[in-house]
Amino acid sequence: MRERIGFLGLGMMGSRMAANLASAGFELSVWSYTPGKAQRWADEHEAVALERPREVAEHSDVVISMVVDAEQVRSILLGEDGVAYAAREGLLCVDMSTIGPAAAIDAAAALRQKGISFIDAPVTGSLPRAQAATLTIMVGGQQQDFERALPALQTMGAVIEHVGELGQGQMLKVIGNALAAANAAALAEGLVLASASGIDLDAFVKVTSAGSGTSAQLSMKTAAMRGHDYTPLFRTAHLLKDVRLCLEQARTHGVPFPAAEHARELLNATVERGHAQADYAALIESVEALAGWHI
Amino acid sequence: MRERIGFLGLGMMGSRMAANLASAGFELSVWSYTPGKAQRWADEHEAVALERPREVAEHSDVVISMVVDAEQVRSILLGEDGVAYAAREGLLCVDMSTIGPAAAIDAAAALRQKGISFIDAPVTGSLPRAQAATLTIMVGGQQQDFERALPALQTMGAVIEHVGELGQGQMLKVIGNALAAANAAALAEGLVLASASGIDLDAFVKVTSAGSGTSAQLSMKTAAMRGHDYTPLFRTAHLLKDVRLCLEQARTHGVPFPAAEHARELLNATVERGHAQADYAALIESVEALAGWHI
Repeated sequence: MRERIGFLGLGMMGSRMAANLASAGFELSVWSYTPGKAQRWADEHEAVALERPREVAEHSDVVISMVVDAEQVRSILLGEDGVAYAAREGLLCVDMSTIGPAAAIDAAAALRQKGISFIDAPVTGSLPRAQAATLTIMVGGQQQDFERALPALQTMGAVIEHVGELGQGQMLKVIGNALAAANAAALAEGLVLASASGIDLDAFVKVTSAGSGTSAQLSMKTAAMRGHDYTPLFRTAHLLKDVRLCLEQARTHGVPFPAAEHARELLNATVERGHAQADYAALIESVEALAGWHI
Repeated sequence: MRERIGFLGLGMMGSRMAANLASAGFELSVWSYTPGKAQRWADEHEAVALERPREVAEHSDVVISMVVDAEQVRSILLGEDGVAYAAREGLLCVDMSTIGPAAAIDAAAALRQKGISFIDAPVTGSLPRAQAATLTIMVGGQQQDFERALPALQTMGAVIEHVGELGQGQMLKVIGNALAAANAAALAEGLVLASASGIDLDAFVKVTSAGSGTSAQLSMKTAAMRGHDYTPLFRTAHLLKDVRLCLEQARTHGVPFPAAEHARELLNATVERGHAQADYAALIESVEALAGWHI
């Protein structure tokens, strides 16, 4: 028999991901922070909306969470009316939020005392890929839990990798975001230097994207940086949070990561300029200010 | 009537590029540093081998140079038996080496006094792309000179962009290489951190290459870094030279480029570890030494 799925968090990403579970025919109960949202969503998707995370856990075999940060994950899993209070031994929690390895390991330890299993399964891919069920999902945890979660994960993602032990899905996710941030910082600096040198920026993009200096950041963020258009796809504050989580772990392991440290400083400066809620393409503002040159 | 082309420098890249000019039917005279090499090459490609750069200039309307560094360019254009002594007013020099903007501007000024025009036209793309005539060529200089060189450049490249004034082809080239170096530094650090965290590196590559942290460096250099295989495709010393040229210009323009400064330090450390002539994938060695962890 197919396992019953509970889904906690129906934000921009979560609502799309849960919709793919519903389309695949999973029996689904849902909960959302925003009052009334779960009921509206459930009506549209033939799911059951419930009032508390605990109730979702009582009606599920596997509970998936997709929320904003570690604090929210802690609250819905371990807080008042949280999943841990459902007294459902054998329940599997699959957290797909980005919360860093330490928070994942802490949550897993607390849940284990209630007989509840936990794996971390953060995702990469923006909204369109959540919608198209082509997310990349990186899983940390025990093999048997990974296998148990797999049928549900396969309805949401195209690349699903068991990358290591508990917390290592989170670790890989924050390393990937730290690389994105480092590459974005280098790109912003290169763009400002090209412009200050009098190079035509259309030519810069055309030539650089065909060479060894190209990156996902170059194709994703150059237009936003040039147009100073910071419509949020990924907020500066959120990327900064991930880079910090990565650097905490780097310190723990004694591995220096100066490229990410530089990105953290630039993201920090960008938040201080008032762009916390803007897309992180806004880090071009910090580079422009340092250079005294506007592209 | 089609212009006669002279080609100076028949190294790994130059010999492939000149071959494409020969195949396209250009009347071609060639010269190479290595004695005898030009004659052998000319016999194979129905070209004329000459003894000195000056003689090549006397037999040409357009002289293309593809050598190792600014010193070689200065020597073949302005040194004893150099192009400048051909007294060929109306000659156009197209330098495709990577020498930095300052050297290009200096060479152009010296040649102008002899009535010789100059454009800088460095390339990106490795050996296979030189062979396939699919190089990316970025040109700095006057529009009329660019147009005059275009028929020859089109036999060697797929993307040919007039990016700005004299020296700006060079500038764009060294910015692109600085971005490559910065992305490579971040990648090496991320790889070591992933490995030290116990993440499976195959999973790292699969997941990261599908996400926003991916780059040309990730696809080009990860295998070499993991395998500690530094068979030279692009030498550490050469990349370091380009990053230094870029940072000199950044200083001139008052634009900070800390991402490239960090790459310079790491490349420097890699040269000091004895890897000057190795591929720059060797910078993983410096990161491993700093972390005290081998991947």
